[in-house]
Amino acid sequence: MSINLDHIFNPRSIAVIGASREPDKIGHVILRSLMHRFKGRIYPVNHKAKSIAGLKCYKSVLDIKGKVDSVVIAIPAKFVPGVMEECGRKGVKGAVIISGGFSEVGEVELEEKLRKVANKYKIPVIGPNCLGMLDNYTHVDTLFNPKYKMSRPRQGGISFISQSGAVGAVVMDWAGYKGFGVDKFVSYGNALNVDEVDLLRYLGKDPKTKVICAYFEGTRRGKEFMKVAKRVSKKKPIIAMKAGRSEAGAKAVSSHTGSLAGSDEVWDAAFKQSGIIRAKGIDDMFDYARVLAEQPLPKGNRVAIVTNGGGFGVLATDSCEFYGLKMAKLSKKTERIIKARVPAYAVVKNPIDLVGDADRERYEVALNALVEDRGVDSIICILLMQTANLDSSVVDVVAEVSDQRKKTIVCSSSGGEYANLHMKLLEEAGIPTYDTLRAAARSLAAITYYEDFITSE
Amino acid sequence: MSINLDHIFNPRSIAVIGASREPDKIGHVILRSLMHRFKGRIYPVNHKAKSIAGLKCYKSVLDIKGKVDSVVIAIPAKFVPGVMEECGRKGVKGAVIISGGFSEVGEVELEEKLRKVANKYKIPVIGPNCLGMLDNYTHVDTLFNPKYKMSRPRQGGISFISQSGAVGAVVMDWAGYKGFGVDKFVSYGNALNVDEVDLLRYLGKDPKTKVICAYFEGTRRGKEFMKVAKRVSKKKPIIAMKAGRSEAGAKAVSSHTGSLAGSDEVWDAAFKQSGIIRAKGIDDMFDYARVLAEQPLPKGNRVAIVTNGGGFGVLATDSCEFYGLKMAKLSKKTERIIKARVPAYAVVKNPIDLVGDADRERYEVALNALVEDRGVDSIICILLMQTANLDSSVVDVVAEVSDQRKKTIVCSSSGGEYANLHMKLLEEAGIPTYDTLRAAARSLAAITYYEDFITSE
Repeated sequence: MSINLDHIFNPRSIAVIGASREPDKIGHVILRSLMHRFKGRIYPVNHKAKSIAGLKCYKSVLDIKGKVDSVVIAIPAKFVPGVMEECGRKGVKGAVIISGGFSEVGEVELEEKLRKVANKYKIPVIGPNCLGMLDNYTHVDTLFNPKYKMSRPRQGGISFISQSGAVGAVVMDWAGYKGFGVDKFVSYGNALNVDEVDLLRYLGKDPKTKVICAYFEGTRRGKEFMKVAKRVSKKKPIIAMKAGRSEAGAKAVSSHTGSLAGSDEVWDAAFKQSGIIRAKGIDDMFDYARVLAEQPLPKGNRVAIVTNGGGFGVLATDSCEFYGLKMAKLSKKTERIIKARVPAYAVVKNPIDLVGDADRERYEVALNALVEDRGVDSIICILLMQTANLDSSVVDVVAEVSDQRKKTIVCSSSGGEYANLHMKLLEEAGIPTYDTLRAAARSLAAITYYEDFITSE
Repeated sequence: MSINLDHIFNPRSIAVIGASREPDKIGHVILRSLMHRFKGRIYPVNHKAKSIAGLKCYKSVLDIKGKVDSVVIAIPAKFVPGVMEECGRKGVKGAVIISGGFSEVGEVELEEKLRKVANKYKIPVIGPNCLGMLDNYTHVDTLFNPKYKMSRPRQGGISFISQSGAVGAVVMDWAGYKGFGVDKFVSYGNALNVDEVDLLRYLGKDPKTKVICAYFEGTRRGKEFMKVAKRVSKKKPIIAMKAGRSEAGAKAVSSHTGSLAGSDEVWDAAFKQSGIIRAKGIDDMFDYARVLAEQPLPKGNRVAIVTNGGGFGVLATDSCEFYGLKMAKLSKKTERIIKARVPAYAVVKNPIDLVGDADRERYEVALNALVEDRGVDSIICILLMQTANLDSSVVDVVAEVSDQRKKTIVCSSSGGEYANLHMKLLEEAGIPTYDTLRAAARSLAAITYYEDFITSE
């Protein structure tokens, strides 16, 4: 079956089957999520209600007069195959099935029955047993966690597919809070007839997706996954997190999604071959994704560090060396330019310490000199916002240098409310900002690794 | 010289030498920080002003009628030895010298002159060239970063000494924001006559300090440091971060504090011998400190995991195994008790998956059964606050179990504003809460390591 997912990500109309009047029900939350920003037509389907949230309600998709491109289904499992049959007859071109109660609880036959119906009508299905999906540009939002508990991310270039709905929910919430830019998110659950391979292929061709992140516990199509990954990762980076690494973890996987975790060494080798960047946690997955989505690739591994706190310069140096990066040797010219404009007690060699009373101008001088230095491939800019002289305008200084796109630039900052605000502002200005120096260095190492991969062939 | 630091941490009166009327000056910020909560007498000293912020101002400490236990000095370096002489004549018993401009910029003789005066009068000195200190119980707060940019932590059992002021500032700000409990913080700068060894010895005897954290780049008294550390760490845990691990990092150290970084392997071995827990970053230093300060020691390395998201159960299992912990085998009784009270689709084996619709009651059942299970030494409780059914009252459920102090309990949660609020509430209830599973597992491994150290002798 050739799979077209466009109708799922960009439908003109969506029916919500199992739409509910009761605010606590999943079918209500999904309807409200869609109504909030989706611009196409929305049809609630419920066999009892006449209208929900001001929209006319239908007993079945077959009763809807207009075309229905896509459906979201949130009804008890046993009714799903029958409803799917109706969707097929209606000419629906894509479905997201939230409902659980299929193979994950042993109902293998019910799932098989559903698959047959979907395939008969050539309907691609996200799910069942999933959190649904989010397209941040078309605003198809079927996530059923309440908005007040789970924020949504801003628009951006990172797409994320996840076998686990919970992992997806936490990551989206976190991305929203931190100011990370996201394109599409898909929780694909039991993967009825759309799995990680199909999604990888689709996102590989999707122009809005700059970087693909994937969380999975296993795959039924290992070889094909790697083949597609190898092709896609030459065009755009793939960062994957494969859970069930340890023996005990693999056992936990079989209780969770029933996947075969497979040998971790085999996965590791396969990832390397296909250019997939392996993440060990959700945090480093998005750490790597941000720099790869927002910053130009570095030409090598030589890093310059700028800080207003000497201790952080030392720590950043240690981290860079640990992750295989090299400390850049600054040119005489760079040193001369900076020295002419900063006090004598500043340290003008790499790591550059602008010291505790540094203001935006010292950063402006240092960063502008560094982007012109041919011995520098990337920059870690450390901003300790706790100091008295560093005000918010430093965000714009870094953004201006970053927008020139001459060097890979990341920031590191950490602290309380005030620091967090500025981290988010930097992030939204396209500068990946990390709260630990290890994360900053590790992420530069990841983008350097990817640059190596695509230029080495 | 036998050193008594009590007058610095708990003075009845403090003079601020270099107190200023101008809000931007360090001498003003320090005076205001002290006035905010310190209950002893405060004497501003400034040779021009008659009063500052409503307090009578003195030209010199010698003009003050009452006793002056301690002074904070923030004036240009060249005037400091003279002022110190006056302090000696006044009978001052401790000093914090914020002023920079001594050995760190090559003014070795000036620093030597200052040391001679201080030692002549037996005045212990914190600094010079430092951020000062904070005692969270006596409210001696000499930190000169503005309060709106840098929060202060709540009271607690962690004390932190830092050679770098910047590292200290960021950590205090972060601790305040996250709800970590802190006792004392000391930025000791150039360590005129009070260094890391003296501070370690003092904090080792300090009843409020439950855990000692230390950041340093080098020491002039390596052997003595280790000797004291070995003695102290049998009574309370020491977590240290030694920067300048790499060759390039060691070079950066010599530009920063002028310390000799020394071979990292030697440090590693010395830390192991003396029972010091080594942290690689600020984050894991406080990750370990929190569980060691707040939770009882585990009897072994067998961990039980409870979650409302299966994917996180898998990831937590992987992390535990990676850090050398073992997945506990639940007793039949534990399984029976939990199964009787949770739906059939929940997974009642380790990791326990209470699934996405779990409420506080399911956690109550699971946690109470686990603390009674003799096969369980510690518990990781994962709370995905994004889900609809989990409300704030789960914080109290975990706190009630934690307060029984039967097992080591940590939480893991992650996400946006809503999740963060609950992480802080958990933290303030004495339950260390980590935003990554790796941090949670690593911290349990650290407390298990410490338990091993103190019981193996």
